[in-house]
Amino acid sequence: MSVCSQFELFGFWRSSATYRVRVALNLKKMNAQEMTIDLDAGQQQSPEFLKVNPLGALPTLIEPGQQPLTQSLAILEYLEEIQPTPPLLPSDPRGRARVRSISSMLTADTHPLVVPRVKNYLMERGGFDLAAWREWQIQWFGAGIRALERRLVTEPGTGIWCHGDTPTFADISLASIIAVMRVFNVSIPNTPTVDRIVEQCDAHEAFLKAAPYRQLGAPPVPVRG
Amino acid sequence: MSVCSQFELFGFWRSSATYRVRVALNLKKMNAQEMTIDLDAGQQQSPEFLKVNPLGALPTLIEPGQQPLTQSLAILEYLEEIQPTPPLLPSDPRGRARVRSISSMLTADTHPLVVPRVKNYLMERGGFDLAAWREWQIQWFGAGIRALERRLVTEPGTGIWCHGDTPTFADISLASIIAVMRVFNVSIPNTPTVDRIVEQCDAHEAFLKAAPYRQLGAPPVPVRG
Repeated sequence: MSVCSQFELFGFWRSSATYRVRVALNLKKMNAQEMTIDLDAGQQQSPEFLKVNPLGALPTLIEPGQQPLTQSLAILEYLEEIQPTPPLLPSDPRGRARVRSISSMLTADTHPLVVPRVKNYLMERGGFDLAAWREWQIQWFGAGIRALERRLVTEPGTGIWCHGDTPTFADISLASIIAVMRVFNVSIPNTPTVDRIVEQCDAHEAFLKAAPYRQLGAPPVPVRG
Repeated sequence: MSVCSQFELFGFWRSSATYRVRVALNLKKMNAQEMTIDLDAGQQQSPEFLKVNPLGALPTLIEPGQQPLTQSLAILEYLEEIQPTPPLLPSDPRGRARVRSISSMLTADTHPLVVPRVKNYLMERGGFDLAAWREWQIQWFGAGIRALERRLVTEPGTGIWCHGDTPTFADISLASIIAVMRVFNVSIPNTPTVDRIVEQCDAHEAFLKAAPYRQLGAPPVPVRG
């Protein structure tokens, strides 16, 4: 699969957006050499990385001689176009609209509120302490996961996975939110349909291989009481 | 164009996400009956609207007998699929990836931070006063618009519009952020390429007709010193 083997993926072990690209690559059996950019050490703003991507944003997918590709869902759409098998979007426009809507709800309405730059602002300039930050995290993770649960229960498109019986962008987006919730030790109760689908992701090799604590640069899995 | 005339669009005059759908419909010469859901009065949580969309989210696009369509970019992709002319995405996968990436940067990394539910949380539970909220708005609008300026200046895809010489999702996303910045009287200096493209949106009927202060339910345009 020579079209795929030249990719370099710049990411970070616990980055939710990097995780999404990792799972899509795994599902499509595409390879990318992953390069760690340590967000905790501020490497995304290093002169070396800014040469790769002047925006200093993760994930960044590179094909030699091409402009860097950024923004996880834009990258997923690109992968879907250049490697359509297995499809990660349904074949009908309304199904695709539903999958994209669920994905946006999680990656656009939920995730951007709980990223490091927002934490830094709230802690340094917004008067938040760690307890206030944790309340904030629980608020927005909870809003997103509960809204998804409501959709999964009420909308007829739900199948074994979020939409139908094969994994799509929607499951990747869900799993990416759950992955960071686990890193931050946040869980949202009373969402059984979400839990059922997350269990399936947990049993799927493409998702497992992408898990934060399995990546280069990750700390040991913390033991929690 | 009978495929389009049955649409109902539930929106609000100053909603940035509703604006995006409005512009896309205008560019594609599709019609939708717009129904106002007053966010200031909390109508998105009224029993009537929750029957239309159990998530209480704007915009919501309805075709009779179908599930509601939500999330502005998912709706744009849907409109692009059912009404491909004029195209609002480039014809090449890398061009589409760039347009989708710019759109995500604005609609996912920027906009969700400055929406009413975040304001409510910060004012009611985060200890913010109006001055702190304004600083927050300027911070995130500024981060998004400056990042876009850098891309427009450095990336070869930039044309008369954000990508090439016809309007795309990227211009719609940019104009939607500028539209709410104007409502909130926020402007970001020293972004000449952004300003040049915004001027073009301002001269284009599809964008003009979608402007917040031209919508049903909008207050008079405020006079500012």
